Amino acid sequence: MYLDKINSPDDLKSLSVEELDCLAEEIRTSLLDRTHEVGGHIGSNLGIVEATIALHYVFNSPIDKIVFDVSHQCYTHKILTGRREAFTVPERYKDVSGFTNPKESKHDIFKVGHTSTGVSLALGLAKARDLRGDKENIIAVVGDGAICGGEAFEGLNNASMLNSNFIILFNDNEMSIANNYGGMYRHFRKLRETQGKCSNNFFKLMGFDYLYLEEGNNIGKLIELFESVKGHERPIVVHIHTQKGKGWPYAENNKEAGHNIKVGGYNPYCEVGQRQECYENLTREYLLDKLAKDSSIMVVNCATPASQGLTFEFRDKAGKQFLDVGIAEEHAVAYCSGIAKNGGKPVLVIQGTFMQRTYDQLMQDLGLNETAVTVLVFAGGLYPSETTHSGAFDISMVCNIPGLTCLAPTNVEEYFSMLDWAIEQEEGPVVIRVPMVVRHANSKESFSSEKAKKYELLRKGKDVAILGLGNFALLAEKVEKRLASEGIKATMVNPRFYAGIDKDFLESLKDEHRLVVTLEDGMLSGGFGEKIARFYGNSDMKVLNFGGDKEIYDRVPQDELYARCRLNVENIVSDIKAILLPVLKLVSNA
Amino acid sequence: MYLDKINSPDDLKSLSVEELDCLAEEIRTSLLDRTHEVGGHIGSNLGIVEATIALHYVFNSPIDKIVFDVSHQCYTHKILTGRREAFTVPERYKDVSGFTNPKESKHDIFKVGHTSTGVSLALGLAKARDLRGDKENIIAVVGDGAICGGEAFEGLNNASMLNSNFIILFNDNEMSIANNYGGMYRHFRKLRETQGKCSNNFFKLMGFDYLYLEEGNNIGKLIELFESVKGHERPIVVHIHTQKGKGWPYAENNKEAGHNIKVGGYNPYCEVGQRQECYENLTREYLLDKLAKDSSIMVVNCATPASQGLTFEFRDKAGKQFLDVGIAEEHAVAYCSGIAKNGGKPVLVIQGTFMQRTYDQLMQDLGLNETAVTVLVFAGGLYPSETTHSGAFDISMVCNIPGLTCLAPTNVEEYFSMLDWAIEQEEGPVVIRVPMVVRHANSKESFSSEKAKKYELLRKGKDVAILGLGNFALLAEKVEKRLASEGIKATMVNPRFYAGIDKDFLESLKDEHRLVVTLEDGMLSGGFGEKIARFYGNSDMKVLNFGGDKEIYDRVPQDELYARCRLNVENIVSDIKAILLPVLKLVSNA
Repeated sequence: MYLDKINSPDDLKSLSVEELDCLAEEIRTSLLDRTHEVGGHIGSNLGIVEATIALHYVFNSPIDKIVFDVSHQCYTHKILTGRREAFTVPERYKDVSGFTNPKESKHDIFKVGHTSTGVSLALGLAKARDLRGDKENIIAVVGDGAICGGEAFEGLNNASMLNSNFIILFNDNEMSIANNYGGMYRHFRKLRETQGKCSNNFFKLMGFDYLYLEEGNNIGKLIELFESVKGHERPIVVHIHTQKGKGWPYAENNKEAGHNIKVGGYNPYCEVGQRQECYENLTREYLLDKLAKDSSIMVVNCATPASQGLTFEFRDKAGKQFLDVGIAEEHAVAYCSGIAKNGGKPVLVIQGTFMQRTYDQLMQDLGLNETAVTVLVFAGGLYPSETTHSGAFDISMVCNIPGLTCLAPTNVEEYFSMLDWAIEQEEGPVVIRVPMVVRHANSKESFSSEKAKKYELLRKGKDVAILGLGNFALLAEKVEKRLASEGIKATMVNPRFYAGIDKDFLESLKDEHRLVVTLEDGMLSGGFGEKIARFYGNSDMKVLNFGGDKEIYDRVPQDELYARCRLNVENIVSDIKAILLPVLKLVSNA
Repeated sequence: MYLDKINSPDDLKSLSVEELDCLAEEIRTSLLDRTHEVGGHIGSNLGIVEATIALHYVFNSPIDKIVFDVSHQCYTHKILTGRREAFTVPERYKDVSGFTNPKESKHDIFKVGHTSTGVSLALGLAKARDLRGDKENIIAVVGDGAICGGEAFEGLNNASMLNSNFIILFNDNEMSIANNYGGMYRHFRKLRETQGKCSNNFFKLMGFDYLYLEEGNNIGKLIELFESVKGHERPIVVHIHTQKGKGWPYAENNKEAGHNIKVGGYNPYCEVGQRQECYENLTREYLLDKLAKDSSIMVVNCATPASQGLTFEFRDKAGKQFLDVGIAEEHAVAYCSGIAKNGGKPVLVIQGTFMQRTYDQLMQDLGLNETAVTVLVFAGGLYPSETTHSGAFDISMVCNIPGLTCLAPTNVEEYFSMLDWAIEQEEGPVVIRVPMVVRHANSKESFSSEKAKKYELLRKGKDVAILGLGNFALLAEKVEKRLASEGIKATMVNPRFYAGIDKDFLESLKDEHRLVVTLEDGMLSGGFGEKIARFYGNSDMKVLNFGGDKEIYDRVPQDELYARCRLNVENIVSDIKAILLPVLKLVSNA
């Protein structure tokens, strides 16, 4: 085994190309073994094994700095930079994050998990280098999926003006997570077909020097290529054609399915046996039915269709009524606004963490323009995630943007009735936080604009009212039961919406209640509960807000995460009693 | 006068080219007259008079739909679509917004004031048209400044795949607000120099059909050009070369200064006589001094340098230590993160409303990566603005992003001491909300990490504590005085920071206070005050939060704006007394 001897990039430099080839195979085997056990982005990593070896063979990391855009392709880099055992020793598989992480190694420059930032980040490194007059190489490794995100374009536009060393390794494996879409990809195909020689060349017209290598998985040729650009004193794009999923026949033939392997999944509410019913599948079936009945409905997604249940079959059936715009979240929102403005009924299906790219568009293009766009936010909630992919922040972001109606259904039937309404109404944008808890109501009641502004009284109690938003309706019920067992009958409320408050309802609670408790499956800061605390600020009503801390958690296990935020029945009941009992006692003594 | 007879685009269609030329001159005169009186974006509007006339001559608005990207260039369009008198009758100058606005006219499709969204919005219109099988023309009018924003690129990437009518009028006047920067602009120059004939062509390589017109201010040729693309059944880019500021010698020769004319300005705190001292000028002088002393400091701006006081002279003197990256806010943040990571000291100077584009980058590239970037947010506050340029939302956005230190100085000396500290510290990103109130402290005290987490006790009082954040320290003082005149001595607090709370301080207030009042110059929803309401939710402390409603105001005069939000001394004192007096009475009776 060559791999056993690689503890740092230096250990590569004495190996021959043949030996490096063997090493590549060993690495590939370890990638497949580990990923099948713990999951991860396998396709892109398999494709870039050779290029990563060649990079570390030629350049001198960490003095030379390699930035991996989105870092879906950093596994080999981790193996070569002292973290081998996290890929070869099963007990240590979970030692490393799936993304670059400076806390793990000085060879990782940034924590990155959202795409299209690599050129910008690396260009900043280059600028700082120039300001202090140094000469190290700066390399941005960018995939073809990432390079068409708007921010990457902005970075390229700036980078091409630099008068010093800046190397962009453009790793073209012909695939984003799903199929690439857009004019630029026709162009990249042309570049590949002409071996980079066609006269129309995007990178050259911007001012970059440009080199092309067809055999992007050939270590010898890669080394030669990288040696030729090492120390290059102008911005240069090195375009290599690699094979996504290389060495794993399944991924070679199923590039999207082979993009990543999911083990377990992040839904903390899914019990064994429940997995077959999930909101991804439910939503897909619902949308298929709707699309067939109404040709003005358009479903839009941003490069992650499979994660939201929009399978190949869905995409086929939807035909012109579906578009994956690629890693272009900003565009997607404005595009949907345009569709709505001209009589279409757009449904944007998006993962919460990536919706963060669209704060301005949600406000300007949707809220301000009052366009009837339905936004389905998936994967919102407190669950163990990588730092870069937290589901904790979507409530706080959207609920403070004027003009958005934000709904949090608590069960399948409520979700669908909200969806029915959202798609057909013409008043303005509606954000629906797709729940994770698959639960059913007894019946499906129709939803309305009025309901979108009103809390629902579930059960009337006394002294304490509990508002369990969306996913946390379940937690609220558990609290209710525990309180009941101790003789406290809580008023139970489904708030339904979280971008504002139902003032009349909250006012009415003052009569027979001393305490209002809010539960939300997301960060408290800026969220739903704080608005209620503000409402009651001038009154005698006590308020307890439960939710996530203002923190980006790093793969914290579910139980620990809940414990840290006091999000379990014991803590909540104990906090309620601590407030309620003295007050009630005071009153009974009065 | 031809202009007097133009009440709708139909009235154009009977005029000859010569008559349209006369009309253009009349329009130009009215644009100059009006803008010198009430301000506005004049340069871009002067450049596109002819093209707008030709558009409305050839196309059939509002059936054919014209979307103006950022709508800095929509004045002639407004004149031709029934809003003439808002440009010719001084008493009616203020009837219309400076941007397109569907509430004014069916010819305005969207409210737009942030750049680079036009292609996406228009493409949505085209998609909806195709879904219902119609044939109207869809035209996006995009300037060269806007077309290099990342979102525009995302839109182009998608638009080039459309198999139906989609016309992009690329209005190339060689200028963004300030000078254009980036590789794409070298390319556009090449296109102009070759009359659109060079083989390397960005639009063609994406898949667009493409036409070029050098004489972009020639109505006859424009009409011919537009006739040739009317009903074109593929996406096409029509590239016209126009003259920014045409017809106004000053703007022709001073294109940036001639971009817009400011009359008055938006700073509600600037009294007559105070104008010479403003934070824009103070910041510029401060930065110039710093840059000269420390070559690792880098100032970055996004296409609006003059608005933040970064004059030509500043840019010259700063040299390599300044970069205007153009309309590329996302890139700017990540770029700064890279600079900080490699030992530089980046200062991002940005207008609050445009910072909205960077929510994700602030979280992922700054907060998560803990890079020591200083962000100076200008124009944050409640003041009369266009809907698209509100200053009310920056606090609520940044204060809920983990990992950011957010500071709100209350006077010049405090601002500079925070800046001194922010630039030199290495702990993480610091957002400073540049105040509008130019006031001076007696001395400049050094700032520190500890102070960035601690409230400052200004004066100790009793019963009520008032926290006046940033700009509203002044309002807090006025309230203090009024209360004092009524025998209530308030505890006065400068909270200094707003991304979290000083729990110890708030806890200590419980001893001798019944009420805490927060004042913030921005939207309450998700803001600074709500965090304090949440903190006290389980206690007997009453809390009153004052700030802006969750609403996008449309040029609401300052007094009315404050009145709507109860943001004046009378209301605040009255609310305080309404709470405090009964409580105190209760206590004194007990």
